[in-house]
Amino acid sequence: MTEIGELTIGVLGGTGAQGRGLALRWAKAGLTVVIGSRGAERAEAAAAEVRDAAGVDHVSGADNAACAERADVVLVAVPWEGHAELLRSLREPLAGKVVIDCVNPLGFDKQGPFALPVEEGSAAQQAAALLPDSRVVAAFHHVSAVKLADLSVTELDSDVLVLGDDREATDLVRALADTVPGFRGVYGGRLRNAHQVEAFTANLIAINRRYKAHAGLRITDLP
Amino acid sequence: MTEIGELTIGVLGGTGAQGRGLALRWAKAGLTVVIGSRGAERAEAAAAEVRDAAGVDHVSGADNAACAERADVVLVAVPWEGHAELLRSLREPLAGKVVIDCVNPLGFDKQGPFALPVEEGSAAQQAAALLPDSRVVAAFHHVSAVKLADLSVTELDSDVLVLGDDREATDLVRALADTVPGFRGVYGGRLRNAHQVEAFTANLIAINRRYKAHAGLRITDLP
Repeated sequence: MTEIGELTIGVLGGTGAQGRGLALRWAKAGLTVVIGSRGAERAEAAAAEVRDAAGVDHVSGADNAACAERADVVLVAVPWEGHAELLRSLREPLAGKVVIDCVNPLGFDKQGPFALPVEEGSAAQQAAALLPDSRVVAAFHHVSAVKLADLSVTELDSDVLVLGDDREATDLVRALADTVPGFRGVYGGRLRNAHQVEAFTANLIAINRRYKAHAGLRITDLP
Repeated sequence: MTEIGELTIGVLGGTGAQGRGLALRWAKAGLTVVIGSRGAERAEAAAAEVRDAAGVDHVSGADNAACAERADVVLVAVPWEGHAELLRSLREPLAGKVVIDCVNPLGFDKQGPFALPVEEGSAAQQAAALLPDSRVVAAFHHVSAVKLADLSVTELDSDVLVLGDDREATDLVRALADTVPGFRGVYGGRLRNAHQVEAFTANLIAINRRYKAHAGLRITDLP
């Protein structure tokens, strides 16, 4: 397997809270990161902030298409609303690459969060349908953006469920999770079982509201 | 709130692995338990085994209808295939009671487990639709039947997600979870977010196969 430290990680939608937080943690772990956004300027501004916060220089910004081209492994961290459109436009630069989808299709109303229905079954399955030449993995749905951003939290205390049908790709993404102190990459099933992992974010938000927490998930009884 | 120890807990489908395992743990915790099954004789045989294993005498067996009548709080632990039919027949004896649904609508094929679509959204929502006079709560989906049955496992190391729209009912079910050493009842959201909790059992089965484990769930960062 490729040494994880040699890879360049692209983060599409890296100016959002979830994407930026993961970019920060990967930068701090020594990985080379490209933050992608619709505008290259906004991406570069976010990259500069991440470089400052992490105290590293191997973080750059680019528009999403350039980010997809430059990176070896790409995290999709855009809002659900723009998910299909963006991926459709990036089929070529993402071909052959491991694409990690962490998008949670959720709605909110007076009663709180709920899972949105997705025609393909899940955001990850939609990505796989739109990117037939990529190796799509679902992961990083449940990590708290607040905790990711707070570098005083040195151990994140959360497992990262990694789903996919390509063993080499899920192993790589598990290793990518393991680069962040406190994370543990855990295989979580095939891509067809991604919906409930995405939707479970609604439950975590409900838990956060009830307990005033930034809840994460641990799987017990693993060797 | 009613003292949990004063309640009689009924377990519909209590001769199955999940129901019997929970009955055993509740019996051991000192609760009065009625094991329900289609036939009263099979239920009484299971109750005798639980009495022996737990070393207690407050466990009896009955057919499902008598179980529903006698119990204050009722766990629905029947196979998904018979779920709707059984609940439709028990609307009257279950009226006014807290009904806990732990049923996971899953299918299996060559690629392993997957979540079945449910017209009402989830097994728990189906129960709520069929039992409009009951207080339906979803909980106990992820507990390992193997570990429940093995009394050498004294601490079960698993949170029990408890979902529902009735605060008093979810608090009672959380307290019921807390009677079992190692369990912790955690509020997990409204009933409309039960589908992904039920479906997540497919992921746990995939995890169990990959890691040769009896995986459970813990929520981190709770006070």
